[in-house]
Amino acid sequence: MFTTVLIANRGEIALRVLRTCREMGIRTVVAHSTADRDTPAVRLADEAVQIGPAAPRRSYLNPAAIVAAALQTGADAVHPGYGFLSESAEFAEICRAHGLTLIGPPPEVIARLGDKTSAREFAKTAGLAVLPGGGTCGGAAEAARTAAAIGYPVVVKAAAGGGGRAMTVVHEPGDFARAHAATRRDALALFGDPRVYVERYLDAARHVEVQVLADGHGNVVHLGARDCTVQRRRQKLIEETPPPTLTAAAVERLGALTVRAALTAGYVGAGTFEYVLDEHGACHFIEVNCRLQVEHPITEMVTGVDLVREQLLIAAGRPLSLRQQDIVSRGVAIECRVNAEDPSRGFLPTAGTIEHFVPPGGPFTRVDTHASAGARVTADYDPLIAKVAVWAPDRAQALARADRALEEMVVQGPGVRTGLPFLREVLAHPLFRYAKHTTGLVDQMMSTPVP
Amino acid sequence: MFTTVLIANRGEIALRVLRTCREMGIRTVVAHSTADRDTPAVRLADEAVQIGPAAPRRSYLNPAAIVAAALQTGADAVHPGYGFLSESAEFAEICRAHGLTLIGPPPEVIARLGDKTSAREFAKTAGLAVLPGGGTCGGAAEAARTAAAIGYPVVVKAAAGGGGRAMTVVHEPGDFARAHAATRRDALALFGDPRVYVERYLDAARHVEVQVLADGHGNVVHLGARDCTVQRRRQKLIEETPPPTLTAAAVERLGALTVRAALTAGYVGAGTFEYVLDEHGACHFIEVNCRLQVEHPITEMVTGVDLVREQLLIAAGRPLSLRQQDIVSRGVAIECRVNAEDPSRGFLPTAGTIEHFVPPGGPFTRVDTHASAGARVTADYDPLIAKVAVWAPDRAQALARADRALEEMVVQGPGVRTGLPFLREVLAHPLFRYAKHTTGLVDQMMSTPVP
Repeated sequence: MFTTVLIANRGEIALRVLRTCREMGIRTVVAHSTADRDTPAVRLADEAVQIGPAAPRRSYLNPAAIVAAALQTGADAVHPGYGFLSESAEFAEICRAHGLTLIGPPPEVIARLGDKTSAREFAKTAGLAVLPGGGTCGGAAEAARTAAAIGYPVVVKAAAGGGGRAMTVVHEPGDFARAHAATRRDALALFGDPRVYVERYLDAARHVEVQVLADGHGNVVHLGARDCTVQRRRQKLIEETPPPTLTAAAVERLGALTVRAALTAGYVGAGTFEYVLDEHGACHFIEVNCRLQVEHPITEMVTGVDLVREQLLIAAGRPLSLRQQDIVSRGVAIECRVNAEDPSRGFLPTAGTIEHFVPPGGPFTRVDTHASAGARVTADYDPLIAKVAVWAPDRAQALARADRALEEMVVQGPGVRTGLPFLREVLAHPLFRYAKHTTGLVDQMMSTPVP
Repeated sequence: MFTTVLIANRGEIALRVLRTCREMGIRTVVAHSTADRDTPAVRLADEAVQIGPAAPRRSYLNPAAIVAAALQTGADAVHPGYGFLSESAEFAEICRAHGLTLIGPPPEVIARLGDKTSAREFAKTAGLAVLPGGGTCGGAAEAARTAAAIGYPVVVKAAAGGGGRAMTVVHEPGDFARAHAATRRDALALFGDPRVYVERYLDAARHVEVQVLADGHGNVVHLGARDCTVQRRRQKLIEETPPPTLTAAAVERLGALTVRAALTAGYVGAGTFEYVLDEHGACHFIEVNCRLQVEHPITEMVTGVDLVREQLLIAAGRPLSLRQQDIVSRGVAIECRVNAEDPSRGFLPTAGTIEHFVPPGGPFTRVDTHASAGARVTADYDPLIAKVAVWAPDRAQALARADRALEEMVVQGPGVRTGLPFLREVLAHPLFRYAKHTTGLVDQMMSTPVP
């Protein structure tokens, strides 16, 4: 096992990874920006190294600074968390070149699956259903022809994208050229790569994803599926497992298909295969996330499997100790992301200092947070303040528990608004309550005046 | 189901009960003393009623004030939590006389099982092994003869006792008369009843208890066993489930015996049958706790059953929805009680104001607490600040997780010392680690100089 793991991330996920390392007796080094000097992960780490200023490009997105910190502190492995460099094949290459183990798939796998157009091609060969769409070659005119062939609405997406950014839905041919150009500009700015592709856009879709673990010795298991249909600005807000509209048999089939695809891809580590579920219940592959997901806690709550522990064991070369039949999902888990944002202003991030902070607690309630009274919420980073996850034997009880947990949570401070009241509105919404919602739910709620 | 439940308790357990009521859509009224005006349960309750001053005799132990609060607020049921009036047959009678449902067994059952000498007699008829001992009749001389017949060491215990108070271990006949008189005095002062009895004292014992649920319709199930061997001043400090020295088959046998006894007793509600396990592994009945236990969270974590919910459903007259075969225990759970106390001064309670409070969080970690920054810890009440409970697939991982959780917890303030460092010493102690400890562990640790 590793002696020292450098955690190249911040916020709740740095703390999450640190906790499991600590439990496994692994020394932790937290690489942090100047802005994150006083965060819990830094306080709890065995060692902390300042790697740059607040701006991510010069700290959490700076491979040289991170690798230097790892080498200087004697780390033998690097955990990238999610976001930042977690899906950078280039970063994975650099780690390898310096003799550091990156906790994640090898660079070749990230390169193949991280690029969305190549992931689409791979998925087709692996036998997964893929939405009609077209590649990145050719100019705007050719892309427009592809769009017309697919049929509107379509979505223009960055090939190198992720996290719901650099994506534009186009409803009419007349809007295509402009959307195509704008998405290329966004893609270049965000990911340093202007390539975009076109895909059919499903209006009334649900988002479902399958969690896998693969050990590089030919063993792959799935840990069931999560439904992440509640999204705002194409980013997940509430996730649940198992998906309420899929039968156990349907999850099992999708899991088995995904395991086969992961084997075909030579996948290693923890990963997530994302699908959209159309109005007829058919699953279409959209992408693979070659890392731990934000919403991984709900899978942990129903299966009892510590996914970070499995990541570390796999990265250390151990064969999986879990067989598919050992993975038993129990009950229902729901996660709500509490963000510093203002739903009434298009979910615009808010910033300020938290003065009063009370996390929820009690039965079957898990809180992943780096926040506390006195913590500053800045515009430099993701607005996530806390993930509140609950478990219950059935969905109705889980919804009631999630609402109870959110109700007792307090996050107050000048300038800091959170999505807490809005999350409770979603939990109470009839479409969500009866699992009749689609990815359009939040837009529907925002456009419907409160009675 | 009840419309309104009055919670006649304070601290973390008031919050615990409130949470489940809230999740079930039941209105909550919290009855509180003046000292508890600013506690979370009071803040979160639908209604709060001040029932008296800080001194428990005039508030939480005052049946008239509680019943008046219940009637005045339209409550149809009263949840007594643990401690205070939770095992008072008289209080149960008063509630019944006023048309209030007390969430717990009927007064007759409390009367039969709450008195330890009558519980011993009942246990014998129910076929449970009982330690050699003698009744409350006769004077000190007759009790001394009973002690001699049993063989030293013996323990003199209050018949009306509980919570490890009014209990004296006697090692030599010469000390008996004095111990007997002192325990009678304590019993009268603490419980208003001077009756004591004598029982064989087991030096190298473990404490094991079985959780049951009984619905009054003839259905009784057990939810496995908890090991509560780590005690200080005869009060539990660390609890775990399943008991590490019992096989699953042994737990099943003890569970089945306990279910039969509960049926014989006409038990209704959630209850706990306590046993001591001697050095040969034999179980001897000691008492029944006719209420929710402090350590109930660990049973909830391994079974997925919300015990407070079950209590409410049973009290409302519903037949149990759980059958014995539905109750599946998964993994290992450990609870550490974080008290405001000074282990180096005989676990003397400490008092003061908490200035800095950070509860642990993250995977498989549950915190039940009413504490927060700014909270006052007073000598009026139990020194419990928080219960930190963790779950893991096996005991080794659970121990590591418990240590991680305690390590990241912060409770600081002038005058406030906690058992946090000592709890971590227990977790690291070889006897505990290998489950070779007995109820004498804490005394052994305190008498052994730290190397």
